[in-house]
Amino acid sequence: MGDLKAKIVAAVAKDLEKIEGRLEANLTPELALVREIGGHILFSGGKRLRPLLCVLLYRSLGGRDAFVYDVAGIFEFLHAATLIHDDVVDEALRRRGKAAAHTLFGAAEAVLTGDFLLARSLNLAARTKNPEIIATIARITEDMAQGEIEQLRNKGNLGISEASYDRVIERKTAVLIAGACKTGALLAGAGEGAVEAATRYGRELGMAFQMADDLLDYTEDEKTLGKKPGADLREGKATLPLIHTLASGDAPLCAFLKRIAGTDFTEADFLRAREGVIGAGGLDWTLKRAKRHVQEACLALDNLPGGEEREILALLAEYALGRRH
Amino acid sequence: MGDLKAKIVAAVAKDLEKIEGRLEANLTPELALVREIGGHILFSGGKRLRPLLCVLLYRSLGGRDAFVYDVAGIFEFLHAATLIHDDVVDEALRRRGKAAAHTLFGAAEAVLTGDFLLARSLNLAARTKNPEIIATIARITEDMAQGEIEQLRNKGNLGISEASYDRVIERKTAVLIAGACKTGALLAGAGEGAVEAATRYGRELGMAFQMADDLLDYTEDEKTLGKKPGADLREGKATLPLIHTLASGDAPLCAFLKRIAGTDFTEADFLRAREGVIGAGGLDWTLKRAKRHVQEACLALDNLPGGEEREILALLAEYALGRRH
Repeated sequence: MGDLKAKIVAAVAKDLEKIEGRLEANLTPELALVREIGGHILFSGGKRLRPLLCVLLYRSLGGRDAFVYDVAGIFEFLHAATLIHDDVVDEALRRRGKAAAHTLFGAAEAVLTGDFLLARSLNLAARTKNPEIIATIARITEDMAQGEIEQLRNKGNLGISEASYDRVIERKTAVLIAGACKTGALLAGAGEGAVEAATRYGRELGMAFQMADDLLDYTEDEKTLGKKPGADLREGKATLPLIHTLASGDAPLCAFLKRIAGTDFTEADFLRAREGVIGAGGLDWTLKRAKRHVQEACLALDNLPGGEEREILALLAEYALGRRH
Repeated sequence: MGDLKAKIVAAVAKDLEKIEGRLEANLTPELALVREIGGHILFSGGKRLRPLLCVLLYRSLGGRDAFVYDVAGIFEFLHAATLIHDDVVDEALRRRGKAAAHTLFGAAEAVLTGDFLLARSLNLAARTKNPEIIATIARITEDMAQGEIEQLRNKGNLGISEASYDRVIERKTAVLIAGACKTGALLAGAGEGAVEAATRYGRELGMAFQMADDLLDYTEDEKTLGKKPGADLREGKATLPLIHTLASGDAPLCAFLKRIAGTDFTEADFLRAREGVIGAGGLDWTLKRAKRHVQEACLALDNLPGGEEREILALLAEYALGRRH
């Protein structure tokens, strides 16, 4: 897995550098505090996956203008805005191994900086003067807000169905990644079929990504995650490993999981929960579903022109499954 | 003043009805909860001033398409989004005589519904396919977020200057009203001069409006305001009446005001503060400055075509000074 990551990073190093430069240049609030709060989340080791996808799709479909690096930033600004708001909403204390913005700067400041970043992303979208791109960005934001609200309402409800989980992760994660890919294709002036293939690749990759992310909370340790494992279970958030276990596990296990979910349980309790989830096939099922989405993503790539970019996009899909953080 | 209001309302009744209809039609989240929270603030007796201005400017500059009623809604959605976020930020309990959304539905739900409304307003903007309109809307949102943050940072700082106050109210109030007017003009396909005049009218009106609003907190009673008077002083928020008083009042008065600002003072203390502010000319000065902005707004109207719409716009400017809520 380390090899795969190194291979991808080497192939896109120049792109990442340019993305970084335009992110810095385009984060230009008038208030120093907004730069500080925005910068706290924007420049704290994000992988820039979303902008990178936008750039790769753009270039794979023949785009050659450096303006794509500005446009690609939209998806990092949007992502940062929702992370800031989510951390306020979830009262999360840590993000990417650092203190969450609202704990350092205040919830009010964090909410308003999130608003600024949302607006900034739409401002960048407006610069494309492409109504379809602009509508895509606005629509993503609506979907994400609704996905987050639905997830919030589901909290503490361990009886949610796999279909309901799918709907939430599609809205809160997959639409943004799909939007980044779609925008790259639209900006390149691609035809309808290619735009659709790019969007589908992004959506499937996004689903796989979120499922892999939800796995990590059961499989990784605090050092790798940058926060305590078991956070979802502790918050009473039912993700796929738990949903599958509750649907197929035996009665004592389910009773135990329901009893500790949403409480500040001990590490021993978490280890027991994890054993149960593994035993009931919760992790295997989640990995299997994530793999299926990766396969779908790769099938979508078949409808895009071959070349270096497409190879990297395929590597990224593979990487989605094995990543550690 | 009642006569003036009745005259305006009669002249714009049909427009208000159409604005209302399109607001209802365009608030279409997939989640019932988002409709409930959004509807709670959107349909609680707002005056629809911002959409109305957009419609009036559009028509005064020759626009005739009913699509303007959809576009006009942008400014009510944006306004509602910022009110919801502001109430979370200020921990306000009441809004328009009703419980603030976050106290009924939770802060997290309120933040996310605000995000949805922001996105919805940008979605409507995208439907115009007019890059200048879209950029205007995105820019407004950035400005408003920064204005709110600056205001928040100023809280408890009674030493802020009149210039700093001007900058905050321009960003948090005037840019939105100016944007509504500018968008009406742009949508009508007006020339640069007319667009500029419309924008200037809106900005001056917005400044007057906020100053008049800041007066109300010192002059009106709880019944008229829908919340306790003296809220700004209680929050430690220095608005123009207080800023002027602290700059020109005598030492014992200033010491008293500084002592009670930001505390949960008694009604007797508030009455004493109000007497002091009146005595030091704080209300007179604020009214004088608001009047000057109204005059500037009316001067800007001279650069727009004559007709019924322009007359109503002049009445609205006059009304800004005398309104009660």
